[in-house]
Amino acid sequence: MYRTNTCGELRLSDAGREVTLAGWVQRIRKMGGMTFVDLRDRYGITQLVFNSDSDSELIEASNHLGREYVIQVTGKVAERSNKNPNIPTGDIEINVTSLNILNKSEVPPFTIEEDTDGGDDLRMKYRYLDLRRPNIRANLELRHRMAFEIRRYLDSKGFLEVETPVLIKSTPEGARDFVVPSRMNPGQFYALPQSPQTFKQLLMVSGFDRYFQIVKCFRDEDLRADRQPEFTQIDCEMSFVEQEDVLQMFEGLVKHIFKYVKDIDFAEPFPRMTWADAMRLYGSDKPDTRFGMQFVELKDLTEGSGFAVMDDAPYVGAIVAPGCASYTRKQLDKLTDFVKRPQVGAKGMMWVKYEADGSIKSSVGKFFTDEQIMEWLKRGDAKPGDLMLILAGDTMKTRKQLSELRLEMGSQLGFRDPNKFSCLWVIDFPLFEWDDETQRYYAMHHPFTSPNPEDIDKLDSDTGAVRATAYDMVVNGNELGGGSIRIHDSELQDKMFHLLGLSEEEARYKFGFLMNAFKYGAPPHGGLAFGFDRFVSILAGLDSIRDVIAFPKNNSGRDMMIDAPSEIDDSQLDELSIRVDLDEKK
Amino acid sequence: MYRTNTCGELRLSDAGREVTLAGWVQRIRKMGGMTFVDLRDRYGITQLVFNSDSDSELIEASNHLGREYVIQVTGKVAERSNKNPNIPTGDIEINVTSLNILNKSEVPPFTIEEDTDGGDDLRMKYRYLDLRRPNIRANLELRHRMAFEIRRYLDSKGFLEVETPVLIKSTPEGARDFVVPSRMNPGQFYALPQSPQTFKQLLMVSGFDRYFQIVKCFRDEDLRADRQPEFTQIDCEMSFVEQEDVLQMFEGLVKHIFKYVKDIDFAEPFPRMTWADAMRLYGSDKPDTRFGMQFVELKDLTEGSGFAVMDDAPYVGAIVAPGCASYTRKQLDKLTDFVKRPQVGAKGMMWVKYEADGSIKSSVGKFFTDEQIMEWLKRGDAKPGDLMLILAGDTMKTRKQLSELRLEMGSQLGFRDPNKFSCLWVIDFPLFEWDDETQRYYAMHHPFTSPNPEDIDKLDSDTGAVRATAYDMVVNGNELGGGSIRIHDSELQDKMFHLLGLSEEEARYKFGFLMNAFKYGAPPHGGLAFGFDRFVSILAGLDSIRDVIAFPKNNSGRDMMIDAPSEIDDSQLDELSIRVDLDEKK
Repeated sequence: MYRTNTCGELRLSDAGREVTLAGWVQRIRKMGGMTFVDLRDRYGITQLVFNSDSDSELIEASNHLGREYVIQVTGKVAERSNKNPNIPTGDIEINVTSLNILNKSEVPPFTIEEDTDGGDDLRMKYRYLDLRRPNIRANLELRHRMAFEIRRYLDSKGFLEVETPVLIKSTPEGARDFVVPSRMNPGQFYALPQSPQTFKQLLMVSGFDRYFQIVKCFRDEDLRADRQPEFTQIDCEMSFVEQEDVLQMFEGLVKHIFKYVKDIDFAEPFPRMTWADAMRLYGSDKPDTRFGMQFVELKDLTEGSGFAVMDDAPYVGAIVAPGCASYTRKQLDKLTDFVKRPQVGAKGMMWVKYEADGSIKSSVGKFFTDEQIMEWLKRGDAKPGDLMLILAGDTMKTRKQLSELRLEMGSQLGFRDPNKFSCLWVIDFPLFEWDDETQRYYAMHHPFTSPNPEDIDKLDSDTGAVRATAYDMVVNGNELGGGSIRIHDSELQDKMFHLLGLSEEEARYKFGFLMNAFKYGAPPHGGLAFGFDRFVSILAGLDSIRDVIAFPKNNSGRDMMIDAPSEIDDSQLDELSIRVDLDEKK
Repeated sequence: MYRTNTCGELRLSDAGREVTLAGWVQRIRKMGGMTFVDLRDRYGITQLVFNSDSDSELIEASNHLGREYVIQVTGKVAERSNKNPNIPTGDIEINVTSLNILNKSEVPPFTIEEDTDGGDDLRMKYRYLDLRRPNIRANLELRHRMAFEIRRYLDSKGFLEVETPVLIKSTPEGARDFVVPSRMNPGQFYALPQSPQTFKQLLMVSGFDRYFQIVKCFRDEDLRADRQPEFTQIDCEMSFVEQEDVLQMFEGLVKHIFKYVKDIDFAEPFPRMTWADAMRLYGSDKPDTRFGMQFVELKDLTEGSGFAVMDDAPYVGAIVAPGCASYTRKQLDKLTDFVKRPQVGAKGMMWVKYEADGSIKSSVGKFFTDEQIMEWLKRGDAKPGDLMLILAGDTMKTRKQLSELRLEMGSQLGFRDPNKFSCLWVIDFPLFEWDDETQRYYAMHHPFTSPNPEDIDKLDSDTGAVRATAYDMVVNGNELGGGSIRIHDSELQDKMFHLLGLSEEEARYKFGFLMNAFKYGAPPHGGLAFGFDRFVSILAGLDSIRDVIAFPKNNSGRDMMIDAPSEIDDSQLDELSIRVDLDEKK
């Protein structure tokens, strides 16, 4: 036995006990004849004292300790004269009587502290040292706790966790599939799942009734900010349910997690917003509802002024930034620059200052009377001291730009507190998306998503207006998860394929084994999937998912620590009946 | 809402309630003017009654039901006149007042019953129907329950579940690695992990102290009986531990599972047996200890008889089969055939019948006196009525053959009851295995396994005799899991590499990033991994792991249901910078 206690558990009540601890040397301080060592393990830090009264061998040994050395010490717990109220063990120290150096350490390439001096690349290369930092470890402890509580909740609701295969079949639409050559089946490949969608639907056909899985999924796509080639989903499916059943169940899950992991109670049901309202009021299907600043539509009030920017635009929208009438020219210019960035893409920004004294100043003052502008402010419920920011242009594009501006203002005004949580269901997504290039409809979610029953008669007559029985859970402006009620009726499914421009043969080729399964009694079913990495990062108050993943990959899909991917032997390629062919790369 | 209740929960106390159920039609019986339908879901079976008093439309509808139709019914719970004590809902039935056919079903290709008429191939192709069978579903329910209880136990002991990456680096010894071409890094490949071994050791370097993960692992090898290319491990590691700490912790886990999943209490500590004893007494490092029949070594008692088979053999060993002296010639011949099968490989078998009257009959009677043979029987503690079976030959080979014979006799005598569980630690495995072909030592476990501290001075002088600090948990003759204490001292690790014939460069190339990590303060650590599929199959009383896996692959690594692996598009290959090259296949 290497230790009697961890470095986080001794208290004043242990004073006088002889204990043995083991851990890493966090810090060494010499004061007079004494040497103080902070000993660290996962559970905390305990102060060790090497006293000048100790035998000389021990003192000599303690002189050779270095940062991150692994040591084992025995000694008596004693009350500290200089207590440290910041740590739970701060009332005691250990008067060391024996020291055993279990392992030495080279000087680490960055400091093992919450605020480290290590840059991103160095931290990723030495991830095993980065993981020693208490904040990174806390993220992974949170991740463990969340996974455990998710399982506890779903188990209590009768869900069965079923492992679905990782080596599956590449789909013809599988441009984003990672593939795996099969040695035993030369020339053939497995694919890694982008999600267990078909398998969970098959489990419903199998009568499993309530399925879930916390499961790795894979996507071989260019990694924009905060994507990982392998990511973890909480994948769920239920039989004999309607949308309301699904929303109730998983709203319960999210509330359970907030309660048992963060001790946050949500007394009220989560608000629900249609996709159409979300776009109209926030310009986004995942609005950050921690703050208001809903869009104010001004088109009708701006008509006919002769100001082309507004007159020629099908859409004029605004937000009201409370208390910002005092913004300087420079601040306003910066906001204009912000919306003109290519990532946002607006041509310009207009503004109205509703001064504290009730007067009005505006960038478009020469086109409108104060009375006209006062109508805008009224519609926006602006108060003296507020600032109205206005964009004009194409409806969907301008809404997205205004959404970016709203989020920027929310950040500037401190409305996006990572310790405040606002949850929302967005419902009634459109079933189809029209693609101008290919001149056809695509499924917004996937081709098994059920239309809203009320809209089924519009499938032919007003295809684009048909709503899906699909829903997203949004937290603080992030899509935490989403799902849908699936089609279980094969006639309706055939109709969907037809509307999506798939011939019977194509449908059979692409979705054959699922369609086949549906012939043998598919129950009504639906479900959803949460992005687990994102779920953890939101609860950890982090913007990025990278630090809630133990060994993440960088934006090129590389693991910097183990240096993967890498080249493999020709003999291995031979065995797999494949060759590398860099020339053919387009 | 599709149902007020499941098909498993209504009881006599519900009589009179109006309920709505949904599920699959298991069975239809017409009796007089009544139609009885067994309605099935995951939770049970409830009897529905369509009465001739019902309206004609309902009766007409019920006449069109077929097996596996998905229906929704509403009706009143009533007491049955003909109760069925075999099912929990057997006291009641539902007098149906409304029927809604949710989905029809074609006639399934095999019966959805515990004893199905479907062959293996058909069942695998229609696995989604096979999974409807109550016994298969029960296996997966058991699997869920076990995974949940494993997590609950390990969580309560402070273990953190940490997800390690699936897309890792191929090792130079990775002949069995599945590889994954990287589109973003042309010509480079990820590998799928055969185990998270290096990552869990890195987590110990990171100070995670107690790690576990229920995790998919992958091995691209010829699939002998009961192997799967993807399989699930319970992977565990602890810091600041010695072997005793690890054994205690995971013996606790196994006992917890037996208690909370099977309600079986193991009051006593699990027995421990050295590898040497296991080989000597059972001829196996995973002895089935549900029954005795330990080996009796007879070499010294058989010497000098002039019987070449025994005289020329370095090893003569026997087992005593209780009560089998009455075996006929035919039975004995069958046993001889059994040991002569190529899979067992013995040249022949000798026997001694210790007749109930105390007389002796033996196949080697002409070489030995009754007194001599009586000595063998005495050593084997044989009683009148017992049968002694004897093999002779090379020590290790003969022990393995005798082990097969012992298992066969155990089966014949009914000693291998799948509902009886015998757990055992096998300890003190050899550290090295000598390979005659390459004339060098290989690590029996892996090169990070620590030698037994008592044997360190033998590393050079008596390398082959050095014991490892390695251990296996054996249940009913299956290796349930195994592990070791790892080397954390880099000098000792260098010595190991040297003994394994690895140069410093080779060692760096193969294990570089782990060796690098060990420079920064590696704690003493050790752990183990359980085969989760096997664990479940043992508790389910099954010989094969296939039916505890929802969607298994066959012996060619194929998923018969989704028909994977399969060919992929040239355009996809182009994007990945690889080509299929069947000609170069050796």
